[in-house]
Amino acid sequence: MDYQPHPDELRFLQQDVLGLPQSLQALAPFSDVDADLMTQVLEQAGRFVGQVIAPLNRAGDEIGCRFDPADGSVQTPPGFAAAYRAFVEAGWPALAAAPEDGGQGLPAVLEASLYEWLAAANHGFTMAPGLLHGAYECLKRHGSDTLRTRYLPEIASGRWLATMCLTEPQAGSDLGLARTRATPQPDGSLRVAGEKIFISGGEHDLTDNIVHLVLVRLPDAPAGPKGLSLALVPRQLPDGSRNAVHCTRIEEKMGLHGSPTCAMRFDDATGWLVGEPGQGLGAMFVMMNSARLHVAMQGIGLLDAAWQKADAYARERRQMRAPVRPASRGPQDAADLIVEHPAMRRILDTQRAWIDGARLLAYRTAWQLDAARHAGDDKSREQAQRWCGFVTPILKSACTRQAFDGASECMQVFGGHGYIREWGIEQVLRDARVTMIYEGTNEIQAIDLLVRKVLPDAGAGFAACLLALRDELDASRDNEADVQRRMAQLRYLATAVAMASQADPQLPYEVADDFLRVAMLTLLAWAWARIERTAPPGDARWAAPARAFHRWVLPEFDLRLGLVKRACDNVRQPAAAPRPATNLPR
Amino acid sequence: MDYQPHPDELRFLQQDVLGLPQSLQALAPFSDVDADLMTQVLEQAGRFVGQVIAPLNRAGDEIGCRFDPADGSVQTPPGFAAAYRAFVEAGWPALAAAPEDGGQGLPAVLEASLYEWLAAANHGFTMAPGLLHGAYECLKRHGSDTLRTRYLPEIASGRWLATMCLTEPQAGSDLGLARTRATPQPDGSLRVAGEKIFISGGEHDLTDNIVHLVLVRLPDAPAGPKGLSLALVPRQLPDGSRNAVHCTRIEEKMGLHGSPTCAMRFDDATGWLVGEPGQGLGAMFVMMNSARLHVAMQGIGLLDAAWQKADAYARERRQMRAPVRPASRGPQDAADLIVEHPAMRRILDTQRAWIDGARLLAYRTAWQLDAARHAGDDKSREQAQRWCGFVTPILKSACTRQAFDGASECMQVFGGHGYIREWGIEQVLRDARVTMIYEGTNEIQAIDLLVRKVLPDAGAGFAACLLALRDELDASRDNEADVQRRMAQLRYLATAVAMASQADPQLPYEVADDFLRVAMLTLLAWAWARIERTAPPGDARWAAPARAFHRWVLPEFDLRLGLVKRACDNVRQPAAAPRPATNLPR
Repeated sequence: MDYQPHPDELRFLQQDVLGLPQSLQALAPFSDVDADLMTQVLEQAGRFVGQVIAPLNRAGDEIGCRFDPADGSVQTPPGFAAAYRAFVEAGWPALAAAPEDGGQGLPAVLEASLYEWLAAANHGFTMAPGLLHGAYECLKRHGSDTLRTRYLPEIASGRWLATMCLTEPQAGSDLGLARTRATPQPDGSLRVAGEKIFISGGEHDLTDNIVHLVLVRLPDAPAGPKGLSLALVPRQLPDGSRNAVHCTRIEEKMGLHGSPTCAMRFDDATGWLVGEPGQGLGAMFVMMNSARLHVAMQGIGLLDAAWQKADAYARERRQMRAPVRPASRGPQDAADLIVEHPAMRRILDTQRAWIDGARLLAYRTAWQLDAARHAGDDKSREQAQRWCGFVTPILKSACTRQAFDGASECMQVFGGHGYIREWGIEQVLRDARVTMIYEGTNEIQAIDLLVRKVLPDAGAGFAACLLALRDELDASRDNEADVQRRMAQLRYLATAVAMASQADPQLPYEVADDFLRVAMLTLLAWAWARIERTAPPGDARWAAPARAFHRWVLPEFDLRLGLVKRACDNVRQPAAAPRPATNLPR
Repeated sequence: MDYQPHPDELRFLQQDVLGLPQSLQALAPFSDVDADLMTQVLEQAGRFVGQVIAPLNRAGDEIGCRFDPADGSVQTPPGFAAAYRAFVEAGWPALAAAPEDGGQGLPAVLEASLYEWLAAANHGFTMAPGLLHGAYECLKRHGSDTLRTRYLPEIASGRWLATMCLTEPQAGSDLGLARTRATPQPDGSLRVAGEKIFISGGEHDLTDNIVHLVLVRLPDAPAGPKGLSLALVPRQLPDGSRNAVHCTRIEEKMGLHGSPTCAMRFDDATGWLVGEPGQGLGAMFVMMNSARLHVAMQGIGLLDAAWQKADAYARERRQMRAPVRPASRGPQDAADLIVEHPAMRRILDTQRAWIDGARLLAYRTAWQLDAARHAGDDKSREQAQRWCGFVTPILKSACTRQAFDGASECMQVFGGHGYIREWGIEQVLRDARVTMIYEGTNEIQAIDLLVRKVLPDAGAGFAACLLALRDELDASRDNEADVQRRMAQLRYLATAVAMASQADPQLPYEVADDFLRVAMLTLLAWAWARIERTAPPGDARWAAPARAFHRWVLPEFDLRLGLVKRACDNVRQPAAAPRPATNLPR
């Protein structure tokens, strides 16, 4: 069963619940974006994804990408090249690019919706255009006039694809250890030499040219992250000749076989500096919130793909008698539908609760990404930037983890049929796993949130962010007042961690995952309060996941809150047992 | 890195903590089994598994099994056939078989240890002999004299392998829907016709003969599970001719590629009845506790395999500076070992806490399996049987779930390197996933525990089981008194569910997973109390996972307890909102 986008569901969340058309129209570039236009784009995107991209997903996994060691070429799975051409011709890469660069200038929330569906339908394919927007923004802000003229229109349109070359064999999560060298030449170009690994789309047959953005070290650059600069290295040079950058292998991965993960060798390849020397990480990370949100969207999309498969299977197949049989079923019927079994209903409703709540948070964040750039006053821009800074690592970590855990739950609905290829659920699980790792592992997201963002001002900025959100709630409603209480608990928790960390600098690193989890559950509670306020009363489409959220998802809040609190309390009690810290087991 | 068994760790748990040599010597068949013999068997098993079986694991995954549609044959991965011959020649299949059948008559705890290591080293290979003991017991108890004479010695020795043919395309978790027919012949044999799927080792090149135990329906048998009988259908008939049973395909699975999962067609194949007509499920399920314990051992082994890989990687590779650097590290060192980062230590110690605690529970259960058959008085046998009935579904579900979740945590330690084949951790994750499904899905285990075993006598038997365990604890120690309190909470919880289920028959099915989880955490707390009582004070090998257990694992107890309690409370409050039960979303 191929994934099927449902534009109505996104429209309800984006327009009815969040009122995004109004909010976006307040931003100058989107004054023409109304509900009709947003609905129209969603419907077109849904059709394109469902008809063109989704049917290629199975072949992308089973046949995958082929590497030819003779010439270093990479062949993408059957149908991918034609589908990518159609994707470019329909203008989808340029959806959110600026009109002056040939783009359509539409808001990030529509691009996020497109990429959520793309990932749900075909995660492997989605990796190809997935980095386009980041490369576009990076080049637009930091590229020289020459580079912008030469590369920006091609990237904005998707006619050429782009990569981010960060990781090296010895430098993974810690990019400061990167060693690839760049030597300035008399003509102003660079000679780039080194090896990069884990480069998504480093080589392929989808486009005539591939534009690599490469973290490099200039001569005499200091060690560590401050010595890193950014270079643009194209596969094909402006004179049409082939540049000295080559794919040396593609990785054998657990999943995501539709996307070639390349090891790349730069043999004194020609490149040009992007931005200032020593500012490489800054130039690349300018798009970090957007890139992380995209990974969160992948998580949401993949979880929805798993849910669709499990839901369809559970409505079609009968196994055993349910404890309460539907009235229509007679005593002669040997078995009931899987969906009529309470344990299976719980799995499906719980994953639905995650998908719907996370979607609301992600679309709000996409709007805030635009507001951070286009809001009319400094304060609004700062507020929006603050939201993005705090919420994107939360969403990246929590949505990708739920994609994997939730897809695993959905696999249980199939029994033994879930473990074999036939129904496609095991592909979702394998594909989803990588989202917990790339674009910064989920553990690094949690440390980014707590150690780099919440603690430096002892939680003050985080509290301000939560207070702004609190004001959107109506305390006269019981469930919304409950969300406000949880927000207060989360604020106090940040303060408690800030205090305890003074005495034990390891503490925040140890509880960062739990803190992020408390934050996500708080945000989800806010999201469900908003959905419940808007959904038609008694509509089971929203009432069933709302019930699952309150019964099965939200109670984890107290567990995680307690874990962090107790860890803080232990620090404050001098009589606590010493931890076996340096004396490692084995 | 190949898996490496550590006999010392098992010896400590089995002998020092549990005192198993003494307990086993009290059972007549094991009067000669002393600590020296147990240690010796562990050491030999560890050497064999580490040297012969573990090195074949990667090829088992990458090359896997090959099916030839021309003749229906199945080729196992390179090295498997020779390793299996060595396994048989060394006498490992006969480890726990009775001496009168050519076995070594050793206790189940040693067989469980062997299979834990086998699964850790090479899950795919382990599937081949994994069903031998079940087939042996089934045939020994229910086979006719003729069948026993002909097949029992071959199966006890492992010279012939065996299968369990239960599932059919329309009958998975619900075996009562099975349709394979068996027609009695004048010579006393049966003609068996039908299709079975998901048959592990249905066809292979490891042994001259394969003995299929097949659930069939005799003419005029009633519908449902009571109409099922058991037939023995060999691949090779006693006269040496080939029987009409054929493999029609092997499944493409997420993992476990070293084990062929076969679809089998029985074309009026010749077979013989095992046990009485209509008693097929009973004959097969007599070994259910033993088979489920084996799957739990697989879970423990696979989690240990994941842990070994992650632990080794974390001690070898440096990434980023740790918040507290070891004194030996200088300021010029750019990065610290991964194991020195608190978030990674937490992952490793937490998984270690699960492995050690679960091992203790599993070995105790293996001892109880033997006690249930060989204890000198009825009461002891009944007590042991009760333990096995309650604890095996708990272990099967909890250990396999943790194998998958914990292996996923361990994968995070590798960052991007975890997602590719190189380090083998992604194979562990893929292989482990099936253990949550087969031998009864984990959801079915939870329902078996709560609905079939705890509730029928309103929790009385379950309470008796817990009270016996409680008496092994020393209430004068704080941590052991805490375990006793949790046991009391668990007993009350069973009573609460029993009462609430009167009003809402769906309730126990909905909370069965949480109930099982509370039970597992209680048992783990008992296990860790026992380990902590015995481990040398201050030994970080045990102190670090003990700390992780109390800080990061045990707190989930309150979450799960609360989920079940609130569900019960909701039932008792007549004012509770009606659930959207029949009105399904979408």
